[in-house]
Amino acid sequence: MAGTDLTQRGLGDGIAAGAPAIILIEPQLGENIGTTARAMLNCGLTEMRLVKPRDGWPNPYAQAASSGADVVLESATLFDTAEEAVADLEHVYATSARPRDMIKPVVHPRRLAAELRRAQGVQAPTGILFGPERTGLRNEHLVLAESLVEVPLNPAFCSLNLAQAVLLVGYEWFQSGLEETALTDTVLPYPGARPAKSEDVRLFFEHLEAELDATGFLRPLEKRPRMVRNLRNLFLRARLSDNEVRTLRGVVRYLAQHEPQRDPEDGP
Amino acid sequence: MAGTDLTQRGLGDGIAAGAPAIILIEPQLGENIGTTARAMLNCGLTEMRLVKPRDGWPNPYAQAASSGADVVLESATLFDTAEEAVADLEHVYATSARPRDMIKPVVHPRRLAAELRRAQGVQAPTGILFGPERTGLRNEHLVLAESLVEVPLNPAFCSLNLAQAVLLVGYEWFQSGLEETALTDTVLPYPGARPAKSEDVRLFFEHLEAELDATGFLRPLEKRPRMVRNLRNLFLRARLSDNEVRTLRGVVRYLAQHEPQRDPEDGP
Repeated sequence: MAGTDLTQRGLGDGIAAGAPAIILIEPQLGENIGTTARAMLNCGLTEMRLVKPRDGWPNPYAQAASSGADVVLESATLFDTAEEAVADLEHVYATSARPRDMIKPVVHPRRLAAELRRAQGVQAPTGILFGPERTGLRNEHLVLAESLVEVPLNPAFCSLNLAQAVLLVGYEWFQSGLEETALTDTVLPYPGARPAKSEDVRLFFEHLEAELDATGFLRPLEKRPRMVRNLRNLFLRARLSDNEVRTLRGVVRYLAQHEPQRDPEDGP
Repeated sequence: MAGTDLTQRGLGDGIAAGAPAIILIEPQLGENIGTTARAMLNCGLTEMRLVKPRDGWPNPYAQAASSGADVVLESATLFDTAEEAVADLEHVYATSARPRDMIKPVVHPRRLAAELRRAQGVQAPTGILFGPERTGLRNEHLVLAESLVEVPLNPAFCSLNLAQAVLLVGYEWFQSGLEETALTDTVLPYPGARPAKSEDVRLFFEHLEAELDATGFLRPLEKRPRMVRNLRNLFLRARLSDNEVRTLRGVVRYLAQHEPQRDPEDGP
């Protein structure tokens, strides 16, 4: 990891200390190592460990496929065996379908993320094993892990490549670092504007209703309160900005003239 | 969609009626349409709509890249404009970074999935817009959508390809159809076995402790209760299967003989 200063390179904003290592066991194609690095960095994961990559290391195809995530590749560490790659870790997980002959706890990526965050909180180093593209992890690798990670997807068609499997696990890791509200709330940003003040909205309503009264639209009078209420609710649901309220007042003013204008900039 | 019977083809297990349509606006590379189809089918999504794919349709590169998800490609529908592609939908979302000049609700893919499920429950058709690979959606597309979908990832390195963006949105959709416990619990499957009965576990403990008593391991006697408790807890944490309890009894029996056996199958 020497020589890699993520902060200096400006890639460290989403990266927390104590994130899990991504351990690729016997990856076959350099291109897949590159796309995996890209998937990792998207999720704030930077520690890649490689166990016997088939085509040697470093691999120029990996760099070409990493779309700029070469910082992950440059700091990747190489191991001869899976045992050595996990030796310093306190919690090891393995991504795999359930084997038919092993009794092994199975967790969802969301549960995995919660366990990894708990380990991060007590400075316990963690890692996740991913197998060779064609065959996946073998039993000798699964026994290194305390739990298996299984991504529930369409049982009739489950076809993820290596980078996609890493992306889904990393995605849950990254989301688990966000506030719960970021996952479940709707955000309404007002770029270059502010939510309108209630009084300005009320003045717009009164302007609109006065003009509508003048045209006879809000008749008969016994229906007026309901019509006004419905109109106000419609505009309130839009949660108007200050600019939009000004625009709407212009719209009403122009419409109420009953005559087309040549140039709106001239004013009424 | 005529001629496509997912049930018949055995691909329908994870697919629910009322899933959102995935709408690709002016996709550039056929290969990306194919990998998107693959990502969709992984997540039980089968309705693909294409608006002006750059290289025409059908596209042989799409099929080659779909890894068997050609059922999605075969039933894809083609449109000339984004407006036509969303005309029949009641809720339209657009995947995009936040524009600087638009006031538009922004939701997380998890929130999106919850909203889509709610719509599914009342038979409201829904769709999600994805833009061209290089440029993303333009403002003319964003105004078709009631909300934007934003995937929070490493702010210093956010680099998803089209299929990966669809995969993350589809992943949340698929997971939202599972029981909450499937996401947060640990599952311990016992393939070919059953969890051991308490009595069998107790008999193993007594067997082990009797043999250890005989060897003098559980001395001094005032420490015996604590040592026994720790040993029992260790094995209980493993949540043994019936087979494993039998194996452990054999282990104790063999070890207790203090003599190596030539062939374990001969028995003690």
